[in-house]
Amino acid sequence: MAEFDLIEIIRARCSVARADVLLGIGDDAAILAPPPGHDLLVSTDTLVAGVHFPPLTTARDLGWKSLAVNLSDLAAMGATPAWALLALTLPEADRTFVDGFAEGFAALAAQHRVALVGGDTTSGPLSVTVVVHGFVPTGRALRRDGAQPGDHVYVTGTLGDAAAGLRCLDRHDPATVALFNAPLDTRESLLERLHRPTPRVAAGAALRDVASACIDVSDGLLADLGHVAVRSGVGIEVDALELPASSALLALFDASERLALQASGGDDYELAFTMSPARAADLLRDLARIGCGATRIGRVVAGAGVRLLDAAGAEIVLDRRGWEHFA
Amino acid sequence: MAEFDLIEIIRARCSVARADVLLGIGDDAAILAPPPGHDLLVSTDTLVAGVHFPPLTTARDLGWKSLAVNLSDLAAMGATPAWALLALTLPEADRTFVDGFAEGFAALAAQHRVALVGGDTTSGPLSVTVVVHGFVPTGRALRRDGAQPGDHVYVTGTLGDAAAGLRCLDRHDPATVALFNAPLDTRESLLERLHRPTPRVAAGAALRDVASACIDVSDGLLADLGHVAVRSGVGIEVDALELPASSALLALFDASERLALQASGGDDYELAFTMSPARAADLLRDLARIGCGATRIGRVVAGAGVRLLDAAGAEIVLDRRGWEHFA
Repeated sequence: MAEFDLIEIIRARCSVARADVLLGIGDDAAILAPPPGHDLLVSTDTLVAGVHFPPLTTARDLGWKSLAVNLSDLAAMGATPAWALLALTLPEADRTFVDGFAEGFAALAAQHRVALVGGDTTSGPLSVTVVVHGFVPTGRALRRDGAQPGDHVYVTGTLGDAAAGLRCLDRHDPATVALFNAPLDTRESLLERLHRPTPRVAAGAALRDVASACIDVSDGLLADLGHVAVRSGVGIEVDALELPASSALLALFDASERLALQASGGDDYELAFTMSPARAADLLRDLARIGCGATRIGRVVAGAGVRLLDAAGAEIVLDRRGWEHFA
Repeated sequence: MAEFDLIEIIRARCSVARADVLLGIGDDAAILAPPPGHDLLVSTDTLVAGVHFPPLTTARDLGWKSLAVNLSDLAAMGATPAWALLALTLPEADRTFVDGFAEGFAALAAQHRVALVGGDTTSGPLSVTVVVHGFVPTGRALRRDGAQPGDHVYVTGTLGDAAAGLRCLDRHDPATVALFNAPLDTRESLLERLHRPTPRVAAGAALRDVASACIDVSDGLLADLGHVAVRSGVGIEVDALELPASSALLALFDASERLALQASGGDDYELAFTMSPARAADLLRDLARIGCGATRIGRVVAGAGVRLLDAAGAEIVLDRRGWEHFA
């Protein structure tokens, strides 16, 4: 199978038509027309087999997730997605794999009207790099560097489910027996969070002009809030008891295990953001309207670093703050 | 070594400052300001160890080449480069490798004022994906689909040197003895073409509004002209005796081997283009002014496909038209 065919299969599935794509796949580069009055947001993430996804991940889930983690970066900036490029490295030209991958990728692309405008398929160890482009009105992107002491800290949705889902896949995990005895829909809901995360695109747009800083929770809540603290030059206090948990997480893990998953588990792709308390009521109403819950989990303080606090205000130290490559 | 440090090392070396980069590396996405009145060109290419570059390639050469092959795609569209993203997958965090890679990447980025605005470093088998962005005034990008019967076909520079350089590295190649007995600067000039190709950015800009179609020669001349023929709905005839050869290629290979290298060898990164004969004199003068030679190698005809012709006009059939992934 020729390289061209692989790209063509994927392109044919991702048939989102956009007027701002003047020339798509098939030349040396795509020709695109950025909208006037907007800034262009660009982000990229690579997923490597065995590092970022377990070996048994289906092609369809991998296609979905490789786009989802990138759209999540745009969501964290408040951007509206527009275009994607896909660099797919495969050990062999496997038509079934490519069909499944394309199906998962295209399903999420269609939801957000993302056009696939370029790509490269190469022969080698399985790995996926996606690049996404989106827009915000000029000067209105959300950033990590605007948190102010006195702001409150919020997070969308629930935390720890994806990391719990990963444990469901590990037969050596001591929790596995309990997990396998859990109702099927409980396990499935955790695996769904791991394999098919939902980028919070609409929530990110709602946060524009309201949040003072925003980041997506990909490496783990405390690690990601640490980036906000550094870039904003502030400290952040997180109340352990306030961290939102799904019913599946509550059913399957005790309080201590749950906290570790919520505070340090990666792959949540929720948005953590800071804002002035005065803006909270309106924003929470706007988020509720688009079906996105958000929970107040802490506060921005003068100083540096992120501290996880118990109900008495004493610091809790976890073994592992989150995922760090080459750590 | 943490992921962040690797990106930081590379970012620090690539210190091109651009007013259109509103926020570079360090947030969830870069914030960029595309210039009004221009189209945005985007392209990506992946290089995988052992597939796209030989195992002994230095980190510095790999850094250079990973950007060069992408800038070559922009050159083929007549675009002025602006921004790049880099997804680097490494088996281990090797500071020496990263320093060398960054040095090669940054040297070429500085030449073309390309700002590195995003990236991802991950742990896994060595592979590099680069994405480049560039601009052309609205509607003026060069494309593959404009060749017309009656146009002449040209190519910049010389052909076959990179493929000859690859043979210099193969100790099982029957030509190796002759290659090793060649003057050192002859071998070095071929290896330079293989490892440190020069993207024809200025030539591509000069071709805007003049060439009817353009492509970069990455997969081999005949294979790449085949893409032009398909997209333009025309046939192309190439005169074998007209293909330009470097003095190194002339010194080391007989006519038959030379022709195979020139017509089918990949990795040249010259520009092949078509244009009306009436435009030739002015364009060749403009190209000469920027130090870029160009040679007329054939003509566009009605019909389909690419035919390589000898001096008598008879077709020459080569074993292998060029590189095809998963072929």
